[in-house]
Amino acid sequence: MSLIVQKYGGTSVGSVERIKAVAAKVAQSHASGNQLVIAVSAMSGETNRLIGLAKDIDDQPCLREMDVLVSTGEQVTIALLCMALKTLGVEARSYTGGQVRILTDNAHGKARIQEIDGHRIRADLNAGRVVVVAGFQGTDQDGNITTLGRGGSDTTAVALAAALKADECQIYTDVDGVYTTDPRVVSRARRLDKITFDEMLEMASQGSKILQIRSVEFAGKYNVPLRVMSSFEEGPGTLISLEDEDQMEKAVVSGIAFNRDEAKLTIRGIPDQPGVAYKVLGAISAANIEIDVIVQNVAKDNSATITFTVHRNDLLPAQKLLKDIAEDLGALEVDADDQIAKVSIVGVGMRSHAGVAAKMFESLAKEGINIQLITTSEIKITVVIEERYLELAVRALHSGFDLDAIG
Amino acid sequence: MSLIVQKYGGTSVGSVERIKAVAAKVAQSHASGNQLVIAVSAMSGETNRLIGLAKDIDDQPCLREMDVLVSTGEQVTIALLCMALKTLGVEARSYTGGQVRILTDNAHGKARIQEIDGHRIRADLNAGRVVVVAGFQGTDQDGNITTLGRGGSDTTAVALAAALKADECQIYTDVDGVYTTDPRVVSRARRLDKITFDEMLEMASQGSKILQIRSVEFAGKYNVPLRVMSSFEEGPGTLISLEDEDQMEKAVVSGIAFNRDEAKLTIRGIPDQPGVAYKVLGAISAANIEIDVIVQNVAKDNSATITFTVHRNDLLPAQKLLKDIAEDLGALEVDADDQIAKVSIVGVGMRSHAGVAAKMFESLAKEGINIQLITTSEIKITVVIEERYLELAVRALHSGFDLDAIG
Repeated sequence: MSLIVQKYGGTSVGSVERIKAVAAKVAQSHASGNQLVIAVSAMSGETNRLIGLAKDIDDQPCLREMDVLVSTGEQVTIALLCMALKTLGVEARSYTGGQVRILTDNAHGKARIQEIDGHRIRADLNAGRVVVVAGFQGTDQDGNITTLGRGGSDTTAVALAAALKADECQIYTDVDGVYTTDPRVVSRARRLDKITFDEMLEMASQGSKILQIRSVEFAGKYNVPLRVMSSFEEGPGTLISLEDEDQMEKAVVSGIAFNRDEAKLTIRGIPDQPGVAYKVLGAISAANIEIDVIVQNVAKDNSATITFTVHRNDLLPAQKLLKDIAEDLGALEVDADDQIAKVSIVGVGMRSHAGVAAKMFESLAKEGINIQLITTSEIKITVVIEERYLELAVRALHSGFDLDAIG
Repeated sequence: MSLIVQKYGGTSVGSVERIKAVAAKVAQSHASGNQLVIAVSAMSGETNRLIGLAKDIDDQPCLREMDVLVSTGEQVTIALLCMALKTLGVEARSYTGGQVRILTDNAHGKARIQEIDGHRIRADLNAGRVVVVAGFQGTDQDGNITTLGRGGSDTTAVALAAALKADECQIYTDVDGVYTTDPRVVSRARRLDKITFDEMLEMASQGSKILQIRSVEFAGKYNVPLRVMSSFEEGPGTLISLEDEDQMEKAVVSGIAFNRDEAKLTIRGIPDQPGVAYKVLGAISAANIEIDVIVQNVAKDNSATITFTVHRNDLLPAQKLLKDIAEDLGALEVDADDQIAKVSIVGVGMRSHAGVAAKMFESLAKEGINIQLITTSEIKITVVIEERYLELAVRALHSGFDLDAIG
């Protein structure tokens, strides 16, 4: 008998019919002998409807009351799902975050889970009941309702799995697993059977938006095996877990991540002196602009060049700031480019394999794609290229690293 | 400084605009120095929408989960009202029934309040905040969400007022007070400035459907002065309180109540013997049919006649049962009549005034209205008449007892 936490998102419970379908899936897993805790989101559209009501009253509604308001969305779902389970003869009981209780800090709208009391849930599981918990919400130590922020139901599921020492946490969503890359770009993209937490983090932060990054971090920290599965189709999904020597050694690269939300800024000919990077990047950060890739080089004349990327929406303010800084520092010039894209290869296998970077650059060179920036981490190599070559680059790397589906 | 509990029903908070209007009313009362606790219902239509979702899943949804579901309706209102108060510069804080906490028994869907913890509310009031509480809901001692049943927000307000020893409990509704009778029937009906709990109970149970009977009983039991007021107009409303010798002696009759929802059944020629009433009425009650007026007489030949009224919807099954009983008892005949109406005069003054009944019968006789049944209680005299004379009877009594508005 396994203890499994399942999470169903807003689309999966978006109508009474879909809630009935989820109940059928849960009943099936329960009948096969599993102990089940189900975390659910609000029915799709409901959270936006509630936010709309609030915005009609106040552009900047009180955060405490906002949490009281939007937490009703999941509360509706837990009740309906339990009703649907009972029509299938499955005993079920619903709990709000406060009822569980899921203790959080008091940062309304973006609270973090501090502790989960597994007492009531365990009693229900032992009595043969399915437990249905409202995702995305908790209660602070004064009993105020809090929410974890959008998408926080994933985190609820993982935290429940960690607290209950569940065997697996299954995230049901509208895709059937994690793919080697976006199937809309590479038609031969493959579903991965397994991937490590670290790889998933690199994939997710690069734009494979299946799971909340926070929930993956959480799962990694507490070593909760995560499985991404489809609500609408049968299939094993993708298991996200700690590195498994046997399995993981096989592929050097697990996937190709990319994004085109960024723009590039370059400041050239800065008289090199200690603290230059801080002066440049510190001022950008101080303006609350997030910086992603950073590369610094020093030329023969000892002048420095710093290049970095920011979100495209931040390009204009960042460029304006950078010009002021350039003047201060006596730098030569500032360049801005928003026609760029970022492509990464991700894989724990590259730690122990030499020549991965060389192979990446070769694949791109063969297609005549110029690399503008390179950064590397232990399990990822990222390049910045011209945006118009993005699809070509992803396809070249996908087949270059033998990720294409067969047949 | 007075401590006042105000209750706003579903129509009063039926839209964002109306919630803003309620907030303005609350802010005004707060600005004039009152400490305020506000109990609210779900926005009108919301409870039915939620019940509709449940019924799409199960005709007989689980009662525990039904409470989890429908209690979200009031939770939405408390959050929106607090947001609206803050836009007016009034500090406010919302609480669900569970957060207060309002402890109830575990009869889901029709729970009764056992205890209210006034601790958090008092702290907020002392800090100058308006407290907004979700009506209609509570929590049992295991932390399960319960609801008090439809209209239970009135009871929440009265119970809060009793627990907090409030100076007054104001029920805001879509009428501006309690009237001497239904103004749709008697155009010269008057709003009453004052009425006693007992009178209000007799008026309400007879069809003046302004307040939940339970909330009036509760208010009477704990001596909480209740005031019925309009959400949409200014005005003093009607104060419902304990008998006040000075005020109450003035009018013998406070109001005329009536209803036409009942039907009359008569069983004649029952050989009189002990236990006959029990045999007749016990069988009807056992079939879960509620009996209202009961009259029994014994004829010269010692045979008994029992007449009683039931809700019109119950007439056919009651009639069928009665025929079987008549056969068993060797009674002569069974009559049924659904063209009847019930009219009552209500007033604490009639306790100390002789001749009130005579005056009632005289008023009806003048109009040629035949009385079929008469029952009396300490502060009420009820007659059953032919339905077609109902309006005539109410108008005759209204003017006969000097209730008509002047001018």
